[in-house]
Amino acid sequence: MKVSIVTIGDEILIGQIIDTNSAWMAQQLNMAGAKVVKIITASDGHDDIIDSIRQAREVADVVLITGGLGPTKDDITKIALADYMNVEMVFSQSTYEHITGLVKKYGINPTEGHRMQSMLPANTVLLENKMGTAPGMWFDLEDTVLISMPGVPYEMQYLMENEVIPRLVKRFDVYPIIHRTIRTAGIGESVLADKISHIEDDLPDFIKLAFLPSKATVRIRLSARAENGEDVQKAVDEGVEKIVEEISDFVFGYEKQTLAEVVLKRCQERKVTLSTAESCTGGFVSHLLTTIPGSSVVFQGGIVSYSNDLKMNLLGVKSQTLEKHGAVSEATVIEMAKGAIKATNTDIAVSISGIAGPGGGTPGKPVGTVWVCVCNEKDIFTRKLQLSKDRLKNIEYSANIALTAVWRFIMKHY
Amino acid sequence: MKVSIVTIGDEILIGQIIDTNSAWMAQQLNMAGAKVVKIITASDGHDDIIDSIRQAREVADVVLITGGLGPTKDDITKIALADYMNVEMVFSQSTYEHITGLVKKYGINPTEGHRMQSMLPANTVLLENKMGTAPGMWFDLEDTVLISMPGVPYEMQYLMENEVIPRLVKRFDVYPIIHRTIRTAGIGESVLADKISHIEDDLPDFIKLAFLPSKATVRIRLSARAENGEDVQKAVDEGVEKIVEEISDFVFGYEKQTLAEVVLKRCQERKVTLSTAESCTGGFVSHLLTTIPGSSVVFQGGIVSYSNDLKMNLLGVKSQTLEKHGAVSEATVIEMAKGAIKATNTDIAVSISGIAGPGGGTPGKPVGTVWVCVCNEKDIFTRKLQLSKDRLKNIEYSANIALTAVWRFIMKHY
Repeated sequence: MKVSIVTIGDEILIGQIIDTNSAWMAQQLNMAGAKVVKIITASDGHDDIIDSIRQAREVADVVLITGGLGPTKDDITKIALADYMNVEMVFSQSTYEHITGLVKKYGINPTEGHRMQSMLPANTVLLENKMGTAPGMWFDLEDTVLISMPGVPYEMQYLMENEVIPRLVKRFDVYPIIHRTIRTAGIGESVLADKISHIEDDLPDFIKLAFLPSKATVRIRLSARAENGEDVQKAVDEGVEKIVEEISDFVFGYEKQTLAEVVLKRCQERKVTLSTAESCTGGFVSHLLTTIPGSSVVFQGGIVSYSNDLKMNLLGVKSQTLEKHGAVSEATVIEMAKGAIKATNTDIAVSISGIAGPGGGTPGKPVGTVWVCVCNEKDIFTRKLQLSKDRLKNIEYSANIALTAVWRFIMKHY
Repeated sequence: MKVSIVTIGDEILIGQIIDTNSAWMAQQLNMAGAKVVKIITASDGHDDIIDSIRQAREVADVVLITGGLGPTKDDITKIALADYMNVEMVFSQSTYEHITGLVKKYGINPTEGHRMQSMLPANTVLLENKMGTAPGMWFDLEDTVLISMPGVPYEMQYLMENEVIPRLVKRFDVYPIIHRTIRTAGIGESVLADKISHIEDDLPDFIKLAFLPSKATVRIRLSARAENGEDVQKAVDEGVEKIVEEISDFVFGYEKQTLAEVVLKRCQERKVTLSTAESCTGGFVSHLLTTIPGSSVVFQGGIVSYSNDLKMNLLGVKSQTLEKHGAVSEATVIEMAKGAIKATNTDIAVSISGIAGPGGGTPGKPVGTVWVCVCNEKDIFTRKLQLSKDRLKNIEYSANIALTAVWRFIMKHY
């Protein structure tokens, strides 16, 4: 089953929002064994929508369309679809009742917009959207299935999981694609590629290898189409094994595991509690940890000591240390981490202090200078980083390098 | 000037990464007066790359291609480009010297991969990439300009800003597009649309209006092509003015301003300092504030009190309060905010406590129950939210609603 995705929205073409829907849909479709062959982003214009659906249909058995179904006047996907398929728009009483029921629950009176949302192309097979007012629509054309969904992520996700994918799997014969991903930290893409080049050369032709660097981590992905059955899975698994053997020091996890997940899992297994003391990362390490469900068993909390006063008052960093070495120094991050352990009563703590930029650099400590410390009662690890001039990038890199340091620390000590 | 963007990478088609490059490029191109007409994502396959370039070229004067230029073996954009244009690959000595100079600076020895990176199509006009090893390439075809850039965001951004856009502006006659964006918080898309429906109906036909909801905020975007010169700008500005007059209570900013920016700016002007006490948002409010350059003038820091112990020990929340009302309650968020003011010595503090999910809900306090408090020495504001079952969404919504509360509080009191 070949699938094209058409994302509708001027807001994407002018760069006002990022298309995260396509990535999510592609992921789900792949796991279900579909092959996403093209993603096209089209404008809100009637003719552009029709053109893009036509282009997308040329190479695919299924065209998934998102966006342009809201109650506001800029949403015209439905009309373009009706014109493209040459059918009438009709009023759907059941859709209207669903919408009015939903908005009344939130204490909102139905508007004229909600009535317009209930007009659908006459050949619509309705996919019930329990998460919102815009309906999902399935159209059976001769050689293609067209599916239209709202662009609001959780509504689209509900429809994909509960309506679209189950129906598609029933309808088409699909071969699953096998993916394996090795997740590494503490090593760059080029060096990694060099280290496993001889293994890559020996892999069977049907296995594709890709390096995907992202914020101080690199994923190595092996993929193969499973038409040959179990042998493919075995060959991919063997490839993964050989690669991991070569670079085991840098492999923190597999598949979708994040550094935060791996750190929390190990800590939970070993009954280790964790806290943070963040300056330049401003709470981002803490955020990465707390996005993981159940993190509260391990992560007790942290202190964002953005000002020097808070470094002293909440973490007990000495004023002499700040005067002598500065806030961005090995001595300061050590006192921050020690102070976090004391303030939060945890087994280990990680601290980060640096100059995220764009301002604040000096010749001796340019923008991008960052110190990281991980410690427990007995051992202290520190590391100095020299990162870029980009503030957000520095925050994200520092946070991942700090989590890498925590990961190595707990693997060594617990 | 019509532009198509082709993004190359299997990792996007299988949903492993999100294509943020296209959004950034589209934004820059729009501001320069270009019109992005299509974004296509293609696989790493040789023929798919060629097909997508051909499709993209059909509707555009310029095709911008990103991705597939790294030192690893899965990167074949260059070869596909050479085959598509029917030219040879040649070794570029200057590219090789640039690459070896760059990697030696990081203490890395040049690899065979770096030598392969220096092979370029014979008709390449080189665009110097000061941020990395992969070169930018410009190709002048009869009726189209093809441009190939690396997929690493900051390398692509450097090339766009310093090489690509300046050259394109020189080469093509471009009419700027005028965009104005009104940013609102505390009101939903449908109600907003209804409130300004009469203004929308009166707008000139050449102005397009769009509603863009995102995480408890809604942007209203007006856009028009500037072929008619100043009248278009004036008409758009007048439209903005009329809309803002109607919904002024909900307008926190314009264009790219974020809630965090607006809050920090107002606080800085009024010399107000700010701190946070976060439970379920786990440092995300603090992160949103600290991504803004210069935030340290206003934001002193915060406490992520994930455990009840930290709520008591660092923020002074009373054990009786936690026992009687629970950690997710009005009484607790008030004590958290009061405690943050005391611990950090700031003028105002914002606190958040809730059940982010997916676990931890009870019949009385289901997942998605969140309490927010903003206070200073004299006044206290609290609000209860009932959000979704999605952990990350709950964190992001809570954070934005907390910042909305801070914004209203400082507009009222300072």
